Amino acid sequence: MNFKLLIQYDGTDFHGWQVQENQRTVQGELEKVIGKIENREVKVIGSGRTDAGVHAEGQVANVHLKRLFTPDKLRAAINGNCGRDLRILKVETVSDEFHSRFSAKLKTYVYRVVNAPVMSPFWLRFAHHEPRFLNIDKMSEAAKLFLGEHDWTAFSAARSDVENRVRTVTDFVINSYWDDCAGAPVIEFRISSHGFLRYMVRSIVGTMLEVGRGEKDSDTILAAIESGTRKLAGQTAPASGLTLLKVEYE
Amino acid sequence: MNFKLLIQYDGTDFHGWQVQENQRTVQGELEKVIGKIENREVKVIGSGRTDAGVHAEGQVANVHLKRLFTPDKLRAAINGNCGRDLRILKVETVSDEFHSRFSAKLKTYVYRVVNAPVMSPFWLRFAHHEPRFLNIDKMSEAAKLFLGEHDWTAFSAARSDVENRVRTVTDFVINSYWDDCAGAPVIEFRISSHGFLRYMVRSIVGTMLEVGRGEKDSDTILAAIESGTRKLAGQTAPASGLTLLKVEYE
Repeated sequence: MNFKLLIQYDGTDFHGWQVQENQRTVQGELEKVIGKIENREVKVIGSGRTDAGVHAEGQVANVHLKRLFTPDKLRAAINGNCGRDLRILKVETVSDEFHSRFSAKLKTYVYRVVNAPVMSPFWLRFAHHEPRFLNIDKMSEAAKLFLGEHDWTAFSAARSDVENRVRTVTDFVINSYWDDCAGAPVIEFRISSHGFLRYMVRSIVGTMLEVGRGEKDSDTILAAIESGTRKLAGQTAPASGLTLLKVEYE
Repeated sequence: MNFKLLIQYDGTDFHGWQVQENQRTVQGELEKVIGKIENREVKVIGSGRTDAGVHAEGQVANVHLKRLFTPDKLRAAINGNCGRDLRILKVETVSDEFHSRFSAKLKTYVYRVVNAPVMSPFWLRFAHHEPRFLNIDKMSEAAKLFLGEHDWTAFSAARSDVENRVRTVTDFVINSYWDDCAGAPVIEFRISSHGFLRYMVRSIVGTMLEVGRGEKDSDTILAAIESGTRKLAGQTAPASGLTLLKVEYE
């Protein structure tokens, strides 16, 4: 039976999604817990990796199991044996062909920034802190440059075994709302694509923050995209602000 | 100079507000940090204690210092030397007579409950998890019983050196709103009074949760208030759901 898992994790205390020896990872913890339930080694297939410190409100994975479970029983069995910073929200049975990575149609990430003189402890784990003024209009204008099909070499990790760095960003919106607890605006960068390269969202957001602070203009961004020159892009924004929001399937 | 501090803390890793030997407390950390800045022992006067694990979005304290600081300089000096789960949002100079406890007119606490089958890791530190159905209408109806001046013996810590347990609850409202991240309703109990007894809010909320689950009725609550019998009240709700929201002054 093939089970689809809807997963949330606070990435703060994980070394990312992918299994690594001697490190706590989300995939590693799930494979250990489900392996015990199933009483054999299992492979948990994620929709994609997330880096160390990155969160997920809607990660999707699937796992093929021999034992029969009702979805709710499997969910309870996994949750009962994981750290509380990792939770399966939902389990569904799906066709054997379903593959959480290959079947995915669209992924959406959100990057949150608290734009305040002092960082509220309540946002500390899940947002980046920027005390300097950010010009939302300028950032929203620049966000349009990132839409569509481009080679994202300038906005991705230098070392990577990915050869084709062309991806299509279908949506990129910036929302700012007042948060009573922070006593300040929280700015959300929401970006959707069929697929992302490593560090791509954090590199785009880091560039946008420089635009918001008036340190970078549209011409530089266009040049970065066209030439694939990393030093024209902004600094990679910290992992803590980034959350995988949802993965969509047909 | 007398400085008024607006303070936030994630209470998870503190043993409450009040100084205790060999324990990390909010008052203890502030007195240590400000004492170093001032180069002598200082006393930080809080509006009131919060228990271990209880949070604050708007705790208020004051401290008399001999050194002259601009408010922003003092804020930066304190924040630069505290753990990141403790932050001074604002510093103001106030008259020498201002006393954060004696001058306080009204305190408001919020208690948050995630009413979902599975607890989202993003709410784990700041809300209590209740998987069972909670009837909001029944709770809102019962909340009216807690308004006004009462002896709160049944809803406070048994061991306490407080003699007068009469307090006046001026406001008690329950709000439920859908939270996308939790994938479920978050229920907020918001309660205001000039002063609270130890465990009073958590005991009232614990009682309300029993009402919401259909385990306790209005007659029992009235009997608890009138007789001061602790066993008629509900279980004290866990500290993690409780946050001191604000302290108001004239």
